[in-house]
Amino acid sequence: MWPVLFFLVTMVVISQGSALGLNGHQIHLLQPKSGSWGLHVPNVSCLSWRLGVETHNIIGWSTVPKECEGYVGHYMLGYQYRSDSKVVANQALLYAQSLDLAGDGKDVWIFDVDETTLSNLPYYAEHGFGAEPYNSTLFNAWVLEGKAFALPESLNLYEKLLSLGIKVVFITGRGESQRNVTTTNLKNVGYHTWEKLILKSSSYTGVTSLVYKSSERKKLEKKGYRIVGNMGDQWTDILGHHAGNRTFKLPDPMYYIS
Amino acid sequence: MWPVLFFLVTMVVISQGSALGLNGHQIHLLQPKSGSWGLHVPNVSCLSWRLGVETHNIIGWSTVPKECEGYVGHYMLGYQYRSDSKVVANQALLYAQSLDLAGDGKDVWIFDVDETTLSNLPYYAEHGFGAEPYNSTLFNAWVLEGKAFALPESLNLYEKLLSLGIKVVFITGRGESQRNVTTTNLKNVGYHTWEKLILKSSSYTGVTSLVYKSSERKKLEKKGYRIVGNMGDQWTDILGHHAGNRTFKLPDPMYYIS
Repeated sequence: MWPVLFFLVTMVVISQGSALGLNGHQIHLLQPKSGSWGLHVPNVSCLSWRLGVETHNIIGWSTVPKECEGYVGHYMLGYQYRSDSKVVANQALLYAQSLDLAGDGKDVWIFDVDETTLSNLPYYAEHGFGAEPYNSTLFNAWVLEGKAFALPESLNLYEKLLSLGIKVVFITGRGESQRNVTTTNLKNVGYHTWEKLILKSSSYTGVTSLVYKSSERKKLEKKGYRIVGNMGDQWTDILGHHAGNRTFKLPDPMYYIS
Repeated sequence: MWPVLFFLVTMVVISQGSALGLNGHQIHLLQPKSGSWGLHVPNVSCLSWRLGVETHNIIGWSTVPKECEGYVGHYMLGYQYRSDSKVVANQALLYAQSLDLAGDGKDVWIFDVDETTLSNLPYYAEHGFGAEPYNSTLFNAWVLEGKAFALPESLNLYEKLLSLGIKVVFITGRGESQRNVTTTNLKNVGYHTWEKLILKSSSYTGVTSLVYKSSERKKLEKKGYRIVGNMGDQWTDILGHHAGNRTFKLPDPMYYIS
């Protein structure tokens, strides 16, 4: 049966690309010979692009490919992003529950903030889902509104980690000048307590996120903390030194931080 | 437009799960209210499972979840696996072309063998695409047939790397007893030359792939080789020590090697 199926599927894919104008941009959807896919079936090559990003094969990119704006928008607003995030959070919880914790208050879990615990999706939905070049003025104005919402899977994980006796440390690329608004935003959406909220101080100006975060994790371990887990939406949150006993990568096809 | 679309897409996803018997196993496909999806639209949760595997969030698993056998089969035999592999190989080639090579014959690229340069898909298609427990007797019998085919994207990359003056080193979990059949199989499908073919010697019995491969890479560097790139289908091919200047992860949702 499989060889026949392979042939059929291949033929369907080859013969049925078509274009659909959406939100001002052309996106290409694979469509069956009759009937309708609905709107959330992706362009195959955008799907491969997203997988390449999530697996750290595609690095150093500055914007979402223009032809993938519609695909990334559908992904971020639809069921799949939620489902993908849930699988990661579930794995993290299973892992945390398996730990033999010391109970001395030194076991910590590191969370990144943007697109890990807080979501800026309302901002990105207005700015091409990462297809527009990053605009720090506009993005910082959004951050200062303090209206980012909680990623539900991460908030749920956060609460369960606390109940296990694991303390939470946030390490974010947001600057010290955004400490107050970040604190308020986190608390407003349900992150009610933490051991530390580490923001990028001016001494790290021009330093990559990878180096900055590795350095701050090293300081934590020098203070006697054990990093039992580390979760971020960027590979630079979880690569580098002192990454933690186990790391978790949440999906984010909207931007890349080095 | 986006909030409305979000609502619509969510409603479509929630309301339209249905079951389709395929190859003796039930798989759940999302279907539109009218028309046909065709056969290659995946179960959303199996898609999230696959992403979790490819991003190293789901580790240590022994078999593909039974309910995802049909999904993984479609993926492996269809357009998406080829497309995903091509994106990875293209990134690897772009990277290799950007290198300033010494030209002294010491720049090497490491390839894993199974599901990286050679494909055992004909075997796995007969054994549940990883949903059946691994059977070393049957798999080794397949290997000894020497009928694995070349992954086209990897073979193309291999040829381009050679033309750039990069030498190729294969490091495989296959044992020394399979050296002859592996050599013949590689040559028969187009891998006509290499610097070294490193197979797992009996001294590594009981040692993880991660440790074995790290150890062999260390030996290479001690001999003066520079590992400019490293490509595998398993995270344990590209994690660990002396991983190489840059690593590339090919898709493989069929099995996990620690």
